[in-house]
Amino acid sequence: MKPAAVNRQWIYVERPEGELRSECFDLLRSEVPVAQAGQALVRVRAISVDPAQRAWMRAASYRPRLEPGEVMAAYGLAEVVESKTPDLQPGDIVEGDFGWQDYAAMSSGQVTRRDATQVLEHLVGILNITGLTAYFGLLDIGHPRPGETVVVSAAAGAVGCIAVQLARLAGCRVIGVAGGAEKCRWLSEELGVHAAVDYKAPGLREALAAACPQGVDVYFDNTGGDILEAALDLMNQNGRVVCCGAVSQYNQVDSGHGLRAGMPGVLVRKRIRMEGFIVFDHYAKRKPAEAVLLNLIHSGALKAPMQIVEGLQNAPQALIDLLKGRHRGKMMIRV
Amino acid sequence: MKPAAVNRQWIYVERPEGELRSECFDLLRSEVPVAQAGQALVRVRAISVDPAQRAWMRAASYRPRLEPGEVMAAYGLAEVVESKTPDLQPGDIVEGDFGWQDYAAMSSGQVTRRDATQVLEHLVGILNITGLTAYFGLLDIGHPRPGETVVVSAAAGAVGCIAVQLARLAGCRVIGVAGGAEKCRWLSEELGVHAAVDYKAPGLREALAAACPQGVDVYFDNTGGDILEAALDLMNQNGRVVCCGAVSQYNQVDSGHGLRAGMPGVLVRKRIRMEGFIVFDHYAKRKPAEAVLLNLIHSGALKAPMQIVEGLQNAPQALIDLLKGRHRGKMMIRV
Repeated sequence: MKPAAVNRQWIYVERPEGELRSECFDLLRSEVPVAQAGQALVRVRAISVDPAQRAWMRAASYRPRLEPGEVMAAYGLAEVVESKTPDLQPGDIVEGDFGWQDYAAMSSGQVTRRDATQVLEHLVGILNITGLTAYFGLLDIGHPRPGETVVVSAAAGAVGCIAVQLARLAGCRVIGVAGGAEKCRWLSEELGVHAAVDYKAPGLREALAAACPQGVDVYFDNTGGDILEAALDLMNQNGRVVCCGAVSQYNQVDSGHGLRAGMPGVLVRKRIRMEGFIVFDHYAKRKPAEAVLLNLIHSGALKAPMQIVEGLQNAPQALIDLLKGRHRGKMMIRV
Repeated sequence: MKPAAVNRQWIYVERPEGELRSECFDLLRSEVPVAQAGQALVRVRAISVDPAQRAWMRAASYRPRLEPGEVMAAYGLAEVVESKTPDLQPGDIVEGDFGWQDYAAMSSGQVTRRDATQVLEHLVGILNITGLTAYFGLLDIGHPRPGETVVVSAAAGAVGCIAVQLARLAGCRVIGVAGGAEKCRWLSEELGVHAAVDYKAPGLREALAAACPQGVDVYFDNTGGDILEAALDLMNQNGRVVCCGAVSQYNQVDSGHGLRAGMPGVLVRKRIRMEGFIVFDHYAKRKPAEAVLLNLIHSGALKAPMQIVEGLQNAPQALIDLLKGRHRGKMMIRV
């Protein structure tokens, strides 16, 4: 396969105040980069769409803050098309932060080679950041025990929809919190949660309490905000709050230093216990985790719901939709 | 020693709204109780004064909520004067929740026998709840490493003044936060903190930041509120917040369900990680912990500051003073 003449690049041009808008990005048609010695030229095949991308615009975290002028950052899967490093061969499938573009020149240290025989979508979702985040967050931070009650917020999202299933497989009573009756029905019928709570309906606290007659032992928090507060009220003694994300707050204007506003983002960003975590810290245990997840997928015990957006040109809208909760399961862009 | 004819009892008669007042208690002169079969009659010798006593009035926790009409609850040390159980002998020194009174009839399961050769004040303080809270909270929840920065709030209090010393002995840079220049001077000169920050002076955040040029690795939180928020801002990656207490909030009127108001009390009460803990959960490790503390006391490496109030009649005022921060070290009442 020969590189095309053009490398489409989405440039992050403007820091959003509040909701992310398409005006924050410009599409540029650049030359395909040339791989230098030690580098390989890769063709991006699939791009992961993650709420964290909005958080990267806000502040430095495990990566520097995104700055206007840069190619919009994004994890993805790519195929090596040309190599000037002995570590990579044309046809290799690699993962890395390639950004929103068709091509990238990467050194071997910037990418991780993946098993090219795997389903590409699984390499983006269940066997990548979101699947592993659900796995390590639930099992290594949440420590669920059979018979315990586990609540997961943003349960219809990429991480949440794996977390609820893993919690069910671990023998727990599982409550998924999601926005809208349709998502709640889907969680119950497709993913087997014991109860689903619609946070957009009135009476969140009462509904969550009714769904958790024995209290909450593990709260897997993807949202922060009101749902976190409601869950905290219901936590049992020795309960564990897995601070995974705060998607309810990413699109908000910064609101000062109050604990209400700063929580739980500060825990997530700094990995302070309550317990905040970042999946990359657990990558030493990645291979056995992937083996468990793949085994569950192959046996049919675990579903890997996904939503595929076709075409790099739709990347900004995909992220905007994701942040508005207009998706179920893992959202990705096929390039 | 013969029991006197009268048992003075402080009755908790009225739930305080806001600040604790002496009107919340009535002094009653009752008959000395009679030990039944399986019980011993004990004479209270020393009573521990603890901020937690105010929290007991607010809500159920590791013990039921205090209800008006009950003898005011309090941990203390007592001497067995008469026994109708083979487990206890006259002259034994025991600890337990005897309350604010001269005498109590207790079953052997309600008390713990202590080493009668120890200094009584150490049995109330450093070798009891406050010393062990500092020990387990700092070492088993905070996990300080040499060279790390540890911040302790209410550092001049009973738990704080032990925690700062243990952190220093563990090789950490230690910052104590306390109210007033005098307490801060005392922390520096007597307890060897590397810096002391007066939270009553203007510019708490700036002062704490200046005292922690390398950020905060462990924050031992006795106060909640503004100091917690300031510490959270300064936490380093993988920092640990030891949620020990929230003395800044015990005297406040309940302020609804906001995370700002509910945090960190909810963590403490329910032992949710961030990480809340209750010392009694660690009592399986009590004996070796006491051996370490006693060894440090005997070698002179650790000081056990205390403030002794004479007489049961002064119990309400002692607790009121404690909650206003009018003390240094472990406050106790000698009966």
